[in-house]
Amino acid sequence: MTMTKKLVITLLLLISIAFVHCLAFHVDLEEFEPPQQEEQDVPRRGPGGRSSEGWEEESTEFPYHFRKRSFKNWFQSNEGFVKMLPKFTKRARNLFRGIENYRFALFEMEPNTFLVPHHLDADSVVLVLQGHGVVEFVTDKTKESFHVTKGDVVRLPSGVTHFATNTNQTVPLRFVKIIVPVNNPGQFKDYFPARSQFQQSYFTGFSKEVLSASFNIPEELVGRLFSGSQQTGQGIMRRVSPDQIKELTKHATSPSNKHKETKSKHKDISTKLRPFNLFTQDSVSSYTNDFGHFHEAHPESFDQLQDLRIAVAWTNMSQGSLFLPHYNSKTTFITFVENGCARYEMASPYSFQGEQQQQEQQWWPQQGGEEEEDMSGQVHKIVSRVCKGDVFIIPAGHPFTLVSHDENFVSVGFGIHASNCTRTFLAGQENVLSNLDTVATRVTFGVGSKVAEKLFTSQNHSYFAPTTRSHQQTREKREPSFQSIFSFAGF
Amino acid sequence: MTMTKKLVITLLLLISIAFVHCLAFHVDLEEFEPPQQEEQDVPRRGPGGRSSEGWEEESTEFPYHFRKRSFKNWFQSNEGFVKMLPKFTKRARNLFRGIENYRFALFEMEPNTFLVPHHLDADSVVLVLQGHGVVEFVTDKTKESFHVTKGDVVRLPSGVTHFATNTNQTVPLRFVKIIVPVNNPGQFKDYFPARSQFQQSYFTGFSKEVLSASFNIPEELVGRLFSGSQQTGQGIMRRVSPDQIKELTKHATSPSNKHKETKSKHKDISTKLRPFNLFTQDSVSSYTNDFGHFHEAHPESFDQLQDLRIAVAWTNMSQGSLFLPHYNSKTTFITFVENGCARYEMASPYSFQGEQQQQEQQWWPQQGGEEEEDMSGQVHKIVSRVCKGDVFIIPAGHPFTLVSHDENFVSVGFGIHASNCTRTFLAGQENVLSNLDTVATRVTFGVGSKVAEKLFTSQNHSYFAPTTRSHQQTREKREPSFQSIFSFAGF
Amino acid sequence: MTMTKKLVITLLLLISIAFVHCLAFHVDLEEFEPPQQEEQDVPRRGPGGRSSEGWEEESTEFPYHFRKRSFKNWFQSNEGFVKMLPKFTKRARNLFRGIENYRFALFEMEPNTFLVPHHLDADSVVLVLQGHGVVEFVTDKTKESFHVTKGDVVRLPSGVTHFATNTNQTVPLRFVKIIVPVNNPGQFKDYFPARSQFQQSYFTGFSKEVLSASFNIPEELVGRLFSGSQQTGQGIMRRVSPDQIKELTKHATSPSNKHKETKSKHKDISTKLRPFNLFTQDSVSSYTNDFGHFHEAHPESFDQLQDLRIAVAWTNMSQGSLFLPHYNSKTTFITFVENGCARYEMASPYSFQGEQQQQEQQWWPQQGGEEEEDMSGQVHKIVSRVCKGDVFIIPAGHPFTLVSHDENFVSVGFGIHASNCTRTFLAGQENVLSNLDTVATRVTFGVGSKVAEKLFTSQNHSYFAPTTRSHQQTREKREPSFQSIFSFAGF
Repeated sequence: MTMTKKLVITLLLLISIAFVHCLAFHVDLEEFEPPQQEEQDVPRRGPGGRSSEGWEEESTEFPYHFRKRSFKNWFQSNEGFVKMLPKFTKRARNLFRGIENYRFALFEMEPNTFLVPHHLDADSVVLVLQGHGVVEFVTDKTKESFHVTKGDVVRLPSGVTHFATNTNQTVPLRFVKIIVPVNNPGQFKDYFPARSQFQQSYFTGFSKEVLSASFNIPEELVGRLFSGSQQTGQGIMRRVSPDQIKELTKHATSPSNKHKETKSKHKDISTKLRPFNLFTQDSVSSYTNDFGHFHEAHPESFDQLQDLRIAVAWTNMSQGSLFLPHYNSKTTFITFVENGCARYEMASPYSFQGEQQQQEQQWWPQQGGEEEEDMSGQVHKIVSRVCKGDVFIIPAGHPFTLVSHDENFVSVGFGIHASNCTRTFLAGQENVLSNLDTVATRVTFGVGSKVAEKLFTSQNHSYFAPTTRSHQQTREKREPSFQSIFSFAGF
Repeated sequence: MTMTKKLVITLLLLISIAFVHCLAFHVDLEEFEPPQQEEQDVPRRGPGGRSSEGWEEESTEFPYHFRKRSFKNWFQSNEGFVKMLPKFTKRARNLFRGIENYRFALFEMEPNTFLVPHHLDADSVVLVLQGHGVVEFVTDKTKESFHVTKGDVVRLPSGVTHFATNTNQTVPLRFVKIIVPVNNPGQFKDYFPARSQFQQSYFTGFSKEVLSASFNIPEELVGRLFSGSQQTGQGIMRRVSPDQIKELTKHATSPSNKHKETKSKHKDISTKLRPFNLFTQDSVSSYTNDFGHFHEAHPESFDQLQDLRIAVAWTNMSQGSLFLPHYNSKTTFITFVENGCARYEMASPYSFQGEQQQQEQQWWPQQGGEEEEDMSGQVHKIVSRVCKGDVFIIPAGHPFTLVSHDENFVSVGFGIHASNCTRTFLAGQENVLSNLDTVATRVTFGVGSKVAEKLFTSQNHSYFAPTTRSHQQTREKREPSFQSIFSFAGF
Repeated sequence: MTMTKKLVITLLLLISIAFVHCLAFHVDLEEFEPPQQEEQDVPRRGPGGRSSEGWEEESTEFPYHFRKRSFKNWFQSNEGFVKMLPKFTKRARNLFRGIENYRFALFEMEPNTFLVPHHLDADSVVLVLQGHGVVEFVTDKTKESFHVTKGDVVRLPSGVTHFATNTNQTVPLRFVKIIVPVNNPGQFKDYFPARSQFQQSYFTGFSKEVLSASFNIPEELVGRLFSGSQQTGQGIMRRVSPDQIKELTKHATSPSNKHKETKSKHKDISTKLRPFNLFTQDSVSSYTNDFGHFHEAHPESFDQLQDLRIAVAWTNMSQGSLFLPHYNSKTTFITFVENGCARYEMASPYSFQGEQQQQEQQWWPQQGGEEEEDMSGQVHKIVSRVCKGDVFIIPAGHPFTLVSHDENFVSVGFGIHASNCTRTFLAGQENVLSNLDTVATRVTFGVGSKVAEKLFTSQNHSYFAPTTRSHQQTREKREPSFQSIFSFAGF
């Protein structure tokens, strides 16, 4: 009997194990993840020296705001770095399909460095944020080199071999770049004739026989020059001596010297290649007052930007200022914060709940979700604090504002699909709503005629204005009459 | 022993439960469906007042024909309605990828109503079907308003704030709209400065601090003016008094007054905004005879349509008429039936079996299906009876005809990709096949020279012709000789 | 006790079965595959007479190289054939999305044959490889016919009805065609007014009532003329007598007679339709020396190619020659081998491992793979032997070379996205790297100044050069001094 009992107990134990097993299995299934998912989680790293910081999951963030850490390190060494944002559609496919073919990168070159020659299978536009350098373009017929500095815009056509030198002894050369791939949407590569650490020469793609015959040099030397990567050598940015810098940049011209020719009818490749400056060029549109400055180069005004339909903008806001609410008619802006922090506020009728978390696992159902159109009439509040190094997106048509509080704020932006785009302000002296007839305002906003007359006309500034806090006292003295109008109107 | 027995029986029971459990589990797995699938089946409704009629599954229909009930109610009230077709790619992805970025909507405003100011993140073109109204465009610099009536075409550029008034006391103002989104393919939104029932103001997206500082008004009033939706208030279409209409439309000009200036070189935004009329403008192409009228505005002739490459067409067929078989070289037409019913016949070499049912569940396999090209040489008969309120699609290259039987038939269409498009007729006096040499016709159609000479030249009408029934007697008297040619030719 | 023991053993057995069962279940889950996968494996074939050779899995091949057998037989008879490449994205979606909307076809018409009239829902460009023929365009207003021969380029606009005759008594008429669909990316169809074997007439899409009324012919004759396919009749290519050829081609003009008018301002459809010749037209760019010839028509120079942004190129290399390494700035070339074999070498920074095998089953994970960007800096060697009938792809930016060994080599190519494209050579007299300053070369390649000066300037030929083998003796006599420079430089 005792034996039987023992056996029975053992059996019960076994059975409960079996149960637990089956139960556990249920749990497993609920946690089921497709196997390729796990592979994806394994970080893919380039060989040492290029750490891929990876894509930071920012599950509580708005998809329009890319924090500094969202950048991937494409290259990093003591001589500088290249950081790149992932494809926008990777963040939110439904929201960013219209800018799928654009990529954003940030470059920094230390003093006395040289970025080696290369070309891209992409067109691109560069905006210099800081420092002094020389950029040189080489083709099989000519070469041209230009001094560049803060506010200079450089068009880099697809396939043009180019290199750059930081000519300053102390200040890093810092620039942002918008990249427009020509082969495949949102994908591009750099092509280097010379090998460097972690970067093979494109001549590696050719056999020794071909290289020997092509250069008319002995076959046995080809390997030493081009094969493999330079395991112990330098990266794509290299330290150069002041003498070498002098030699490298001796032919460089200052773009402003050739300013007048920009308007010439002879639109050859060199016109397109000539840099221009956002702060000094006449054709740049500007708004400016005590609270801020705004400079924008339109593709209609600059040959360099025309075929890409890209606009380039620079915004500088004083402490305690407001970039008055406005929207862009057709253009989406990809904006980079160069200095300070600000509050970014945007009204979006698009819903994006769960866009981020679900995207990789559930692409198609989500695509289906896009088709199930949201017709709720709801407006979503996009509010975020953006700081130096962050990127934010302002889609076309979306009313948008920026508020700087404790410090000056500087941002730069590339506008996509910028042909014939207009910026429409919703407040300030130039204000679409102030142009409504009084009766239209009354019927639209359901207010009396006195309120209708004053509602959109009380702001005396244009484009930039002081925040409430920064002029609270002033306003409270000035505006009691307006408040009584509202009281009068029954609010 | 009894105890042992009882224990054993208990164990057996437990084990069978375990078995059943595992078995049930198998069944579960076979019935496994991804959870998001079920979520999709839950209808998403806007708040009351906007019922989403939903997408009607028309499994036995041709994908080219959208019945009246396919429209979704985007807005509906006593003052009027806005109905919208779902994305074309939702109906048949493989057939309609080329028109993915186009949306079609129908508007109706009751007499004495006002459509409140708003803008879209989309370009659009409007064609007025019925009634009289005024459309006004407002920018931060100017405003312009125009009287519009039947046959008027209005270009609405992306981002331009606009509103409309039905100025007629008795007749609804009715128009169709083709919409070309600028942010994301096939997706767009409306942006309203003022709240209304079920529609939030875009100012809801901003904090009170920002709105107060922007408008220079007290913060405590901002909420009352802009937040939330107007739960007990009016919709986006509002009843207005005759006095208000007079006031709202006092600056409106008639587009025909400015007709001559349309040709001026100064192509500013106002030229683009100026409406034109399909029936009176010289640059409109027209065919006309006893059996029908056809009017078409090409993008080459109208600045308003040029950059969108959209054509606008109006067809009016008498009872018992035939729009002679023809095809468009590059343009796909999205056609709306405004009056009557007709038989739509089209020849399509594309197969679309199962396109509709499978699309949501098996998108990629179906995409694969597209790749497995149909090389059967088969031609599919697309025959459908289209009636008032329906939409039908005529893709480029597809031979197509319309037959009206018992009543007059009116349809209007927007042509997509309409630059340098030609319409080629396959029958009638102007007829591509009648221009073949006799020997080419003989070799091609395998007929004798007498048949070859008469086959494509016996129709005396162009563009529109009577149907067989409507002139049967006439023909039977006239054509015996031709029949004998065929007999002679061995048919 | 024994009974208890037996029961216990039975129970243990049952429990182990339950365990095994659960275990097996684990295995099942691991082998789980979605059911629709299996459906895909069922081959879809057209009706007999058109065998679909199908897509040859070339698992060990580079995706850039399409062997002769990759073509599908679209039509084949004693009178000739039409072969077509599958959609490029079917081979490698991530690599070829940029050329998704282009299709490539090869035509061959036997002597004394006629290709019946038809139109396409696609624009296309034809290049004649061999033979003599006449192509005729017919619209509902006009007709024009032209003699064509080797090197002639013919633009076929979308929707234009056309037919062709091989006018030579002995030589087949052979041409290649690039096709740009207008309805849906990468999909197009041919539309035939007349039925032939395995090909229905588009009039089959219409009812007899409509056809009878349209042509004004008796209804009972319509069926005999148009319905069904001509089961016992001829294909789309037909044998014609010398007399019929004479009659069919009597109005044909030679394009060169109208050469001067090509530059006229009157760019009507007939200018676009007029063929031009790659070997005789002045506006064609050419490189030529003892080792090869290269002719290229750019879209900037020819109205026929302008709106499609397609370039057409013809390469002819002598035995033992090298097309010096170069890349195209923006253009992807689709190249067809017309004669001989050559080694194709290309450097690609894109990885494509497993692209082919996985694509149909794992489309989305692979798309995810695209997003997980390869930042390894690795360059892939694409080396392949390409022979008559093969097609190879040269994407924009990719350094590329061709080596002919035992025979003359002829290839022809269509360049996609060819506006403002430049070809940059990496070796030879015109060579981008030879334009680098000496100091830039030294810093970039890590060589001494003597090597830097000679490295990219030792090749005296441009564009085409002899291979190593073909002038080994010459070089060895001439170049010892250069070798000693390298030794001196410490290599």
